[in-house]
Amino acid sequence: MATIEDVAKLAGLSRTTVSRVINDQPYVTEEKKQRILQAMDELGYVPNSSARRLRSQRTDTIAVLLPRITNPFFANLIESMEKKASQWGYQVIVCQTHDSEKKELDYLQLLKTKQVDGVVMTSLCNDWEVIEPYLESGPIVLCNEYMEEMAVPMVHMDHRKAAYESTIHLIDQGCKNISYVSGGSDTYLAEERKTGFLKALEERALPFLEAASVDWAIHVEDGRKVFNHIKDHHPIIDGVFTGSDEVAAGVVYEAVQAGWNVPDDLAVVGFDNQMLSLLMFPSVTTIDQPVAKMADRTIEVLVRQLMNPRANKARRYIYSHKLLVRNSTLKKQLVTNL
Amino acid sequence: MATIEDVAKLAGLSRTTVSRVINDQPYVTEEKKQRILQAMDELGYVPNSSARRLRSQRTDTIAVLLPRITNPFFANLIESMEKKASQWGYQVIVCQTHDSEKKELDYLQLLKTKQVDGVVMTSLCNDWEVIEPYLESGPIVLCNEYMEEMAVPMVHMDHRKAAYESTIHLIDQGCKNISYVSGGSDTYLAEERKTGFLKALEERALPFLEAASVDWAIHVEDGRKVFNHIKDHHPIIDGVFTGSDEVAAGVVYEAVQAGWNVPDDLAVVGFDNQMLSLLMFPSVTTIDQPVAKMADRTIEVLVRQLMNPRANKARRYIYSHKLLVRNSTLKKQLVTNL
Repeated sequence: MATIEDVAKLAGLSRTTVSRVINDQPYVTEEKKQRILQAMDELGYVPNSSARRLRSQRTDTIAVLLPRITNPFFANLIESMEKKASQWGYQVIVCQTHDSEKKELDYLQLLKTKQVDGVVMTSLCNDWEVIEPYLESGPIVLCNEYMEEMAVPMVHMDHRKAAYESTIHLIDQGCKNISYVSGGSDTYLAEERKTGFLKALEERALPFLEAASVDWAIHVEDGRKVFNHIKDHHPIIDGVFTGSDEVAAGVVYEAVQAGWNVPDDLAVVGFDNQMLSLLMFPSVTTIDQPVAKMADRTIEVLVRQLMNPRANKARRYIYSHKLLVRNSTLKKQLVTNL
Repeated sequence: MATIEDVAKLAGLSRTTVSRVINDQPYVTEEKKQRILQAMDELGYVPNSSARRLRSQRTDTIAVLLPRITNPFFANLIESMEKKASQWGYQVIVCQTHDSEKKELDYLQLLKTKQVDGVVMTSLCNDWEVIEPYLESGPIVLCNEYMEEMAVPMVHMDHRKAAYESTIHLIDQGCKNISYVSGGSDTYLAEERKTGFLKALEERALPFLEAASVDWAIHVEDGRKVFNHIKDHHPIIDGVFTGSDEVAAGVVYEAVQAGWNVPDDLAVVGFDNQMLSLLMFPSVTTIDQPVAKMADRTIEVLVRQLMNPRANKARRYIYSHKLLVRNSTLKKQLVTNL
């Protein structure tokens, strides 16, 4: 059985530094932290005996709550979380909330009934006041979804900035009448995206075409309906912002089937950089999220809280996105002007 | 609280018939059964008080074990199972085994430790002798995966027949050198598919090109590698059988990028009728599985066993597939001859 000294030795750092990392204390550089975490992984180190004893009374199970696993963004997030959790000796169970307040609470109940040790929430349906009491039964970390106040650790991207950038990109490509297509969830994350979208329109003095916007699109099939809705009722639309690669793929597919030129007649941006967005013809411009990094960090933060309930509880970890420009937005008349 | 009489009344059938359905006894027509199940759903009926009492000592949680949720086939299966389970008052937790024998047993442990009431296994890594003892702790139903012996209820398709049909289709389209592309799992289901593939080759007196076959392809990225492997080492290959739409999509994408004509240079079949197979250009020929029907049946069978442990334990429910012929296999020279 590896000891903290073994970890320190392999990492070439002091015992104190290792201890700092385990307890999520400040003043350790990211490079040292990574060396220590790698050494722990290599040695299969489980922190000190009292933590071990504590854990032996536990389930070694983490629940991850997500809206739906048919969304590949969440499936990929889980994939990475599970790998990381497994390195620390935890198994992951996945719970779908379908954006239902009741289901979310039902699954949080697993924490109360000690069926799981900790919870990761990747979405948030209830108000925080409703969730907070569950913290008495075990730690909760937010990943992907976030909020204003900081009652728990939060690991996420800046969705406002991402939405702003992809909207500006649409406008730079010549779009003047952009439809805002979302799934209609009223989470903080969803609000942030919309704020970013509206900010871009405002900056470029373009109107928000509320009537031509859609708040019910989640799946590929919805995207196909969105295109037909645009074609039949708002043919003036020349750009579509979506918060989902699936929806974007549906729009692109149906537009191409209907003989529209994507992007010249209709430019489309997705979100999440799913494999689908690359495979589509034309390929779909999208926002890449650092899924693996966010997943790893989330598990790391949660496991530290499980090992040491006094570990820093309310820190925010914000990750950067990348706008991946592909053929669904690169208008030809502009390309020839480049 | 609804009673069995309420259900009988709403369904317009006798109390005895309702009781038969609850206990999964024979001699009830499918039509009557559906009426009764619908009436139960509508009334939110939970069968008799002793079952209720029993259930109150339980977790009302079902674990579904699957290889990986990034495979949309399983994600869709879960989606349907969860809907059905929810109608019966059960919540579903999802457990990824990654085809690991150890992880599979770790999750089955949830049954022993009473963290869940019942388990659905959609894949099977361990030998059945290893799984069987867990049945003492609660019911297990197999869905998708199956095996020769019938120790538990099994809900599945005939994968041998499906693979046979899509291979015959490739041959009918003129393919003479077909590569067999799989994920290399050695489950019964995987063997069945391969048997069907080989049977088709044998019937049409074509050789099995083992050297040009691949047993490591699971994701889209693997499919892209498969194509490059074929191009560089086995350019004679003119048809690809895959057990996965993701892999098929990767093959098709990479082939098109490389300037090959799909299907004239290379015909490709997938499996599972994922949305991706329809959205690809060209669209991918595939096998449609009745996912929702299989999922519903699985939950129904499991819930009955939870309500009545003496319910029929070892029945097999086999569903039919559909071969969906699309552009990735419809060779032009043949189409013009039609």
